[in-house]
Amino acid sequence: MRTVLGDNQYGKAETRIVRVDRGDTHAITDLNVTTTLAGDLAATHETGDNSGVLPTDSQKNAVFAFARDGIGEIEDFGLRLARHFVDGAPTIHRARVQIEQYTWQRMSVQGQPAHHSFARAAGTRTTSVTYDGTNSWVVSGIGDLTVMNTTDSEFHGYHRDRFTTLPETHDRILATAVTARWRHAEPSGDWAAVHEAAREHLLEAFADTYSYSLQQTLNAMGERVLRNCPELVEVRLSLPNKHHFLVDLSPFDLDNPGEVFFAADRPYGLIEGTVLAEDAPDAGLAWW
Amino acid sequence: MRTVLGDNQYGKAETRIVRVDRGDTHAITDLNVTTTLAGDLAATHETGDNSGVLPTDSQKNAVFAFARDGIGEIEDFGLRLARHFVDGAPTIHRARVQIEQYTWQRMSVQGQPAHHSFARAAGTRTTSVTYDGTNSWVVSGIGDLTVMNTTDSEFHGYHRDRFTTLPETHDRILATAVTARWRHAEPSGDWAAVHEAAREHLLEAFADTYSYSLQQTLNAMGERVLRNCPELVEVRLSLPNKHHFLVDLSPFDLDNPGEVFFAADRPYGLIEGTVLAEDAPDAGLAWW
Amino acid sequence: MRTVLGDNQYGKAETRIVRVDRGDTHAITDLNVTTTLAGDLAATHETGDNSGVLPTDSQKNAVFAFARDGIGEIEDFGLRLARHFVDGAPTIHRARVQIEQYTWQRMSVQGQPAHHSFARAAGTRTTSVTYDGTNSWVVSGIGDLTVMNTTDSEFHGYHRDRFTTLPETHDRILATAVTARWRHAEPSGDWAAVHEAAREHLLEAFADTYSYSLQQTLNAMGERVLRNCPELVEVRLSLPNKHHFLVDLSPFDLDNPGEVFFAADRPYGLIEGTVLAEDAPDAGLAWW
Amino acid sequence: MRTVLGDNQYGKAETRIVRVDRGDTHAITDLNVTTTLAGDLAATHETGDNSGVLPTDSQKNAVFAFARDGIGEIEDFGLRLARHFVDGAPTIHRARVQIEQYTWQRMSVQGQPAHHSFARAAGTRTTSVTYDGTNSWVVSGIGDLTVMNTTDSEFHGYHRDRFTTLPETHDRILATAVTARWRHAEPSGDWAAVHEAAREHLLEAFADTYSYSLQQTLNAMGERVLRNCPELVEVRLSLPNKHHFLVDLSPFDLDNPGEVFFAADRPYGLIEGTVLAEDAPDAGLAWW
Repeated sequence: MRTVLGDNQYGKAETRIVRVDRGDTHAITDLNVTTTLAGDLAATHETGDNSGVLPTDSQKNAVFAFARDGIGEIEDFGLRLARHFVDGAPTIHRARVQIEQYTWQRMSVQGQPAHHSFARAAGTRTTSVTYDGTNSWVVSGIGDLTVMNTTDSEFHGYHRDRFTTLPETHDRILATAVTARWRHAEPSGDWAAVHEAAREHLLEAFADTYSYSLQQTLNAMGERVLRNCPELVEVRLSLPNKHHFLVDLSPFDLDNPGEVFFAADRPYGLIEGTVLAEDAPDAGLAWW
Repeated sequence: MRTVLGDNQYGKAETRIVRVDRGDTHAITDLNVTTTLAGDLAATHETGDNSGVLPTDSQKNAVFAFARDGIGEIEDFGLRLARHFVDGAPTIHRARVQIEQYTWQRMSVQGQPAHHSFARAAGTRTTSVTYDGTNSWVVSGIGDLTVMNTTDSEFHGYHRDRFTTLPETHDRILATAVTARWRHAEPSGDWAAVHEAAREHLLEAFADTYSYSLQQTLNAMGERVLRNCPELVEVRLSLPNKHHFLVDLSPFDLDNPGEVFFAADRPYGLIEGTVLAEDAPDAGLAWW
Repeated sequence: MRTVLGDNQYGKAETRIVRVDRGDTHAITDLNVTTTLAGDLAATHETGDNSGVLPTDSQKNAVFAFARDGIGEIEDFGLRLARHFVDGAPTIHRARVQIEQYTWQRMSVQGQPAHHSFARAAGTRTTSVTYDGTNSWVVSGIGDLTVMNTTDSEFHGYHRDRFTTLPETHDRILATAVTARWRHAEPSGDWAAVHEAAREHLLEAFADTYSYSLQQTLNAMGERVLRNCPELVEVRLSLPNKHHFLVDLSPFDLDNPGEVFFAADRPYGLIEGTVLAEDAPDAGLAWW
Repeated sequence: MRTVLGDNQYGKAETRIVRVDRGDTHAITDLNVTTTLAGDLAATHETGDNSGVLPTDSQKNAVFAFARDGIGEIEDFGLRLARHFVDGAPTIHRARVQIEQYTWQRMSVQGQPAHHSFARAAGTRTTSVTYDGTNSWVVSGIGDLTVMNTTDSEFHGYHRDRFTTLPETHDRILATAVTARWRHAEPSGDWAAVHEAAREHLLEAFADTYSYSLQQTLNAMGERVLRNCPELVEVRLSLPNKHHFLVDLSPFDLDNPGEVFFAADRPYGLIEGTVLAEDAPDAGLAWW
């Protein structure tokens, strides 16, 4: 059988970089950076000729060196890196830079903001930037954010087959760990402001949507972001349904009026969906 | 801004099922099953009308119920489940069943094979089966398998930019955690035999390829599988480069002739690639 | 060889319970509860006679049932459970209840506190309660709290042996993930108030101690808590030194004045220590 | 309130070292080493005077340097390191070296043992070595080993309270992830031979004990090891009860004669116990 090389890519995953800005008060930027390159890489696969391969070690070094002059918004940092890789290495035709930014809060000491002390908070800000030598695409988002509504969630009227035993419910806990990614119309903008707005609208939509299904909540979250952030054209959401089962306390002669729940690990529902602006431009390589 | 619902899917992730076959000696099948459905699901997203939604709880129940009459090969079990979901629920037009099978070895007691005692071994067997009401696609593979060559690996002659400091090496450790998936030409066959052959050829290619790059090893692994398993038409590999750095012992007046290494966690190289049979048919929904 | 049964214990680990209090606004209590029992358990070990064994399933059920009337402070909840197990089962002479409480923050919707929506925050509140039929001991604490000082940390003047190559530093990042446990003098009190005070003094001591070693910081943290919380008599701290290494950018003709760091995973320093009130009573079974 | 410094220790956790022995065929030793020191360390805690502190970085360097001349059995490697720390640094009066050794199997290529290729297998070999300047103690063991019996396990006749709803069972799955540690009578011996024997007897006892409780199985495992390994005087076992619940298939008009199980994650039973030789000497610092 004759074989051919298909799609391939390579890079350096999870370079953990922390930058300290030493102004009047210190500030920190704490990132997990993954760089991925593709292009004319047949030679290294077929014969081990590495002349077209920029080592992953060099990619890591670039991440550190580029941080020397400041990181700024992660989207801009990603764009600078992606352009460096494609424009600098003749065989590399496409680069993706994925960044997770950890959230840190300035600590307080006796009611005053600390000068140089920080505590990790929940939630990450993310970006995935792609550049092909001509065009750039920016997808931003959030991760590691677990949220819960203790009411205003129902689930009934579903399709039943012979394996359906789930009782209908008119009041349940709805909990999920949000992973959201939103596509920017343009590879430039006020990244921080859009991020803040998108995050806020996403979470508010989760909180104030009266829900008949997690899909409905997902759709409301995506719509709310797009309607309020004209810079964005697409939102993709992955929402595990973190089941909380009402515990049957009747064997102990106790009722349980929606108060005591078992938080289950596995299995879990997994709801994934996309909401787009009606006039969203083609996604190109945004989701590569 | 007007918005539209884009791609969406939902299902039950990570149903952990163990089946015991109670023959002359016992046998066990230990699976982690994820089912994913797609179809006419706009109503639940837009209005919370769930009449087209087969609950994820029912999907879980089906996994358990279908196991009652035996699981058999995971590819067949996945196909049975996928067809059940699409053929049984009018709104569901596509189903994917992903299965991880954990490896258990029969224990020995005083030199004899144990009747009903087992120990977990490394490595998982995987499958991802897709069905759209007409066609079925089967991708199988392996995961959780860490391998190492202590020599016959070089890395040099690479492209250098101003951030390149990596010394060239003519003898290094090459270690990776293999995730491999291979696409079957047909949705039927002797799954176990093909799995065993593909796994063996993959690992042997890792072991006996003299390597000038992990890409070259990846390509050799994919080629070897395709050349020896005519049932397969495509192999996709994801190979983290688990770096082992030679420790500089010179501060202690010691040499280190390739003997003492530091096994690093992050960052790590990540090499991903595809090898196809030259005449591979279109992949359809195989990789959905 | 004749053998004897030594120390033994058993219980139910990691019962995940969420309680919803449905007042004017909802409130949630999210716990991970582990119960451990010891006593006259020789029979089950030696002959499989389980007449003295309260099943771990019954322990789990008790956790759920006891939550029906409210959980309150985790220390009180643990005490109620521990006393139930020892006072209720004649063979059980000692019980320990360990609880992790996850932190949730009420979300805001358009500037107003949400009625029933919450987001997970970093940090856990913990307790370990022990009861032996007569006395009770309460240890409380915190976990999952990562903190960083970007300056005011030095490390030099240490003992040097022939394997010492570490350069002395007069300005480094000091980062750790705090696990702290504090022993209460009495098994009663205003648990929430003491917890809040201890947590605040611990973190402030981390932030405003000018540090020559992580040990010094540890000691300052423990002292500060004890001096400000007279209800407490002992603090135990486990502080991984999460190393941040200054990246050498000189190969790229760049300096690095304390700005760009590599956050390493492993190995890490691990500093553990205890600070006690001079007149601390005997710990009894507090740390069992 | 006056405070005093209590127990304290520090060290370098999780130094990941791989050694390659390059004989006719290669061999590898893959370790995770944690060193912990204690002694006269008040100064660094109280004033930041580090003159008595051997940096954790130097401890890591020692691990690498000591491996230059071969690692051998992990117990011997640990003893060499522990003695180096205590005998070399005047303030250090006690050292503990904990080692996890990962299991690797030589791969086969076309039926022949590979020269330099290995695959990770399940199970770790462990040791914890302690030295106080005069005496040494050695505890060895195993970890990361998941085992299952599909029958010959019952559970009934237990103490019932008002929260007991568990049905009695005369045939259940018994599965656990074994963590075992055994104390050697002397700090010398044929470590590998004892390890192999202890591991084998432990697992055989798991497999062929007809069990009325996991406690009974635990006791049988410990007894079997001590009776067959005269070099050992104590065995400590920690056995999570990995629950496998029989799925109720009756809603689907199916029976389930012990065949289809749900493998639950949390909560889980946790059974811990110790078996000692009747004449076991005092443990000293063995379990520090």
